[in-house]
Amino acid sequence: MPSVKIYDTTLRDGTQAEGISLSCEDKIKIAQRLDKMGFHYIEGGWPGSNPKDADFFWRIRSYSFKNARLAAFGSTRRAKLAAESDDNVKALLASGVRCATIFGKTWDLHVTKSLGTTLAENLAMIRDTVSYLKSHGLEVFFDAEHFFDGYKANPAYALAALEAAAEGGADTLVLCDTNGGSLPLEIKEIVEVAVQRLSIPIGIHAHNDGELAVANTIMAVQSGASQAQGTVNGYGERCGNANLCSVIPNLYLKLGIDTIPRENLAHLVEMSHYVSEVANLSPDARQPYVGISAFAHKGGVHVSALLKEPKTYEHIEPELVGNHRRVLISELSGMSNLLYKYKEMNLGFDRQGPEGKRILAEIKELENQGFQFEGSEGSFELLMRKAQDNYTEPFSLEALRLLVEMKENNPAYAEAIIKIRVGDQVVHTAAEGNGPVNALDHALRKALKDFYPNIGSMHLNDYKVRVLDEKDGTGASVRVHIETGDGQNSWGTVGVSQNIIEASWQALADSIAYGLLKGEKTNLESSSEKSAAGE
Amino acid sequence: MPSVKIYDTTLRDGTQAEGISLSCEDKIKIAQRLDKMGFHYIEGGWPGSNPKDADFFWRIRSYSFKNARLAAFGSTRRAKLAAESDDNVKALLASGVRCATIFGKTWDLHVTKSLGTTLAENLAMIRDTVSYLKSHGLEVFFDAEHFFDGYKANPAYALAALEAAAEGGADTLVLCDTNGGSLPLEIKEIVEVAVQRLSIPIGIHAHNDGELAVANTIMAVQSGASQAQGTVNGYGERCGNANLCSVIPNLYLKLGIDTIPRENLAHLVEMSHYVSEVANLSPDARQPYVGISAFAHKGGVHVSALLKEPKTYEHIEPELVGNHRRVLISELSGMSNLLYKYKEMNLGFDRQGPEGKRILAEIKELENQGFQFEGSEGSFELLMRKAQDNYTEPFSLEALRLLVEMKENNPAYAEAIIKIRVGDQVVHTAAEGNGPVNALDHALRKALKDFYPNIGSMHLNDYKVRVLDEKDGTGASVRVHIETGDGQNSWGTVGVSQNIIEASWQALADSIAYGLLKGEKTNLESSSEKSAAGE
Repeated sequence: MPSVKIYDTTLRDGTQAEGISLSCEDKIKIAQRLDKMGFHYIEGGWPGSNPKDADFFWRIRSYSFKNARLAAFGSTRRAKLAAESDDNVKALLASGVRCATIFGKTWDLHVTKSLGTTLAENLAMIRDTVSYLKSHGLEVFFDAEHFFDGYKANPAYALAALEAAAEGGADTLVLCDTNGGSLPLEIKEIVEVAVQRLSIPIGIHAHNDGELAVANTIMAVQSGASQAQGTVNGYGERCGNANLCSVIPNLYLKLGIDTIPRENLAHLVEMSHYVSEVANLSPDARQPYVGISAFAHKGGVHVSALLKEPKTYEHIEPELVGNHRRVLISELSGMSNLLYKYKEMNLGFDRQGPEGKRILAEIKELENQGFQFEGSEGSFELLMRKAQDNYTEPFSLEALRLLVEMKENNPAYAEAIIKIRVGDQVVHTAAEGNGPVNALDHALRKALKDFYPNIGSMHLNDYKVRVLDEKDGTGASVRVHIETGDGQNSWGTVGVSQNIIEASWQALADSIAYGLLKGEKTNLESSSEKSAAGE
Repeated sequence: MPSVKIYDTTLRDGTQAEGISLSCEDKIKIAQRLDKMGFHYIEGGWPGSNPKDADFFWRIRSYSFKNARLAAFGSTRRAKLAAESDDNVKALLASGVRCATIFGKTWDLHVTKSLGTTLAENLAMIRDTVSYLKSHGLEVFFDAEHFFDGYKANPAYALAALEAAAEGGADTLVLCDTNGGSLPLEIKEIVEVAVQRLSIPIGIHAHNDGELAVANTIMAVQSGASQAQGTVNGYGERCGNANLCSVIPNLYLKLGIDTIPRENLAHLVEMSHYVSEVANLSPDARQPYVGISAFAHKGGVHVSALLKEPKTYEHIEPELVGNHRRVLISELSGMSNLLYKYKEMNLGFDRQGPEGKRILAEIKELENQGFQFEGSEGSFELLMRKAQDNYTEPFSLEALRLLVEMKENNPAYAEAIIKIRVGDQVVHTAAEGNGPVNALDHALRKALKDFYPNIGSMHLNDYKVRVLDEKDGTGASVRVHIETGDGQNSWGTVGVSQNIIEASWQALADSIAYGLLKGEKTNLESSSEKSAAGE
């Protein structure tokens, strides 16, 4: 099986994305996760550019990696200065890595405009810097910045730059589409020329400004490149870098090209979500392969075909990359989607009865208000259970009052007072919190803990707010989504209102009610298992 | 100049995306906007599949289109039924459109598995349905569903399906990569075969499951396709469809292929944001060409090079598609980014003074807390102004109390009491609202309106909440972003706190303070202009 080395630059190019800022701690966590995944190279940062990156390389020394080699990024030496006297080159050596990636100019425009030096001096800068780093025993990759634009402008000079790096002893020549504007067929043509001309391995570093970064990477590999650079989830400057979460499965599953160890492919979703969590970004639901919508089916036609044969509307088996099929409930979906859900939840369902139609109508009405049950299985299951005759709610709200106070230069104060009914008893209590929803959460738990002692094992994992009809400003409706877990399972719930406190209450009350219901079911199951085993 | 017809399916395939639901009103608005943009075909929906779509075609009759032709979507007739007796085909005619797009099976697996009919009957279904619709004078496009997978499995049968549509009289044969798993070179090879074999125009309909939809569309066009189907922003089932906001500028600016009228290209950003607003989705900041980050530069190296020559880090001039360059302030950015901002705001700045360093340090500290000044120019400018000696704040908070009440089955009630100082006067007042932040907004405006009568011209356009550290559940910090306008300009402000009320107050107070400051400046400018003109 042919193979391609994966070179990750999430920790360097990824952090140049708008809205991404990683602490040194975050970077260490991500590096460890990528190593576990089996990436070949992890670019940790640019030690010569900022103290945070230098700190990272210092702290990472105490960790050992199983699969990955850590790389440091830097530039060729300055004009008219020996490589050994250049601070940026010195910082590369000081970082302690065994692999350095240096970028250099290959586009004549850049040499004269940005660097303000001569074309010949630039070639010497490339040659010298590579050979100096090689003489210190490092593996050296040359990032040929703007190579494709450079080649289009002046092919002879762009190739001369590659040759200078080759003369310096570079281990791989990485062709960069820095501005991200090249098309796949241009990449094909130009990579083929480079592969033919140079006897050193060729790599590809693509940006997504034309929405073509993954395609350009795949095309470069098909044209002979053996190193693919990119980032997890495609994070990166402007529109991002080639998304390794798509590059890897495309190479593996479509072209039979080896990258990370086969058994790790099934951890792709988990890794992608881990990195977005550390970067504090919401995962992109629509992201190919790893998004929660990537194998989500809404159209009734699709669902009924899928029930017969999954291959009909899925390009791969979702489990290969650690994802799973989801069937969505919405106004576009018919009875077959609802049926699928009932089955999934092991609930009885009379296809002929009025129940199904009633629930579909209720879902439609709630969705009109802004509810979304995709990802809120807890609220959805409660809705279905409430429609059944034998449902008893674990508690209900009688009244709630919430107070927030702020005084000049003092921290804000939040307090919740609630009155709830459990069976025939009424509890009236209060609690404070570091915000209004937190206070509400504390008060509800306080009110319920005597009735349901195992409420303590439930914890809120995630709280999200989405403003609907954003154009209505502060008068808009908001949708609150809460994710709750009990250490084994997790479930989502939802609330919608123009009042954020009310929406939060709905999602919160559902999350606790569903957790209690689930716990009850588990207790029943395990006690019936016990009795079955005992008798 | 060669040209390609743009066929939009946002209103049909786009609504199959998870999280997208468009009302009939929304669909009419979007159709009008796409017509204005110069799209050639707008697929309005599937009249035979749901009443909402049928309603749309009924209501859209009273609107006239300048550029676009409206298309209705449907399927080939059922097996063993005459086309004229098929309800779905009848609904196409009843919709009143002049153009119908019907999809049919071209993959043998689908014919036998999903349809459960014979290969021969399926060909007859395609031929009959096309020719029946043609006999009613319609322009008919045949969507060859799963064509690429079908061709890979059984090329002869896939081509036979195209030939059946051609025999029926189809005007264009649209090759669909329905499961979205094909690679660009496969698309190239297969489109070339189809173009050679059929003498009818060929179209392309690509999905993004391999993150290759735009590349596959471009490749199909380069291989001879003359109709490109896709959706605005790439919305669509699972991972979405080919994103027309990338396809159009790629064709135009990179390959010199005509699509929509040249003068409309500069409205691309506006159109993309309009559709996301109607669909009630946040625009994707990283989206190529149209995202607010698409030409945003963060790395200090990039910014200093851009100041010399924009082409160095931009693949096109942002203005060509209605976008603009942005320089970001962050810990990765150096003094040159800050300088750029000062210039942009026409503020004096002493490069040697301690001010710059102080502000950079403060920005870093606030960003650590979760503030983000990208997109919050109002708060950012206030920060810079506060650092100047001659700044006087228009008002300040002494105390604030907020109350929310909910009682069983009653709507929630929200009330805000505030005490603020304006110069040496103190105002103490209260107001209610349909939610806590709305009440706060009302109370603040009430308190200020006697001092600043033009506060009435400011309105909140957008209110967004982002939960930071989502894993902390309801105890997490939240970031509130508010967008305010005065009819001419708009500005963003930001607040961060564990208490959502406090964070909202910060953003709200900044938004009003900045608006007052801006108004003052404008008044000064216009009065000085007047006096200059008068004397």
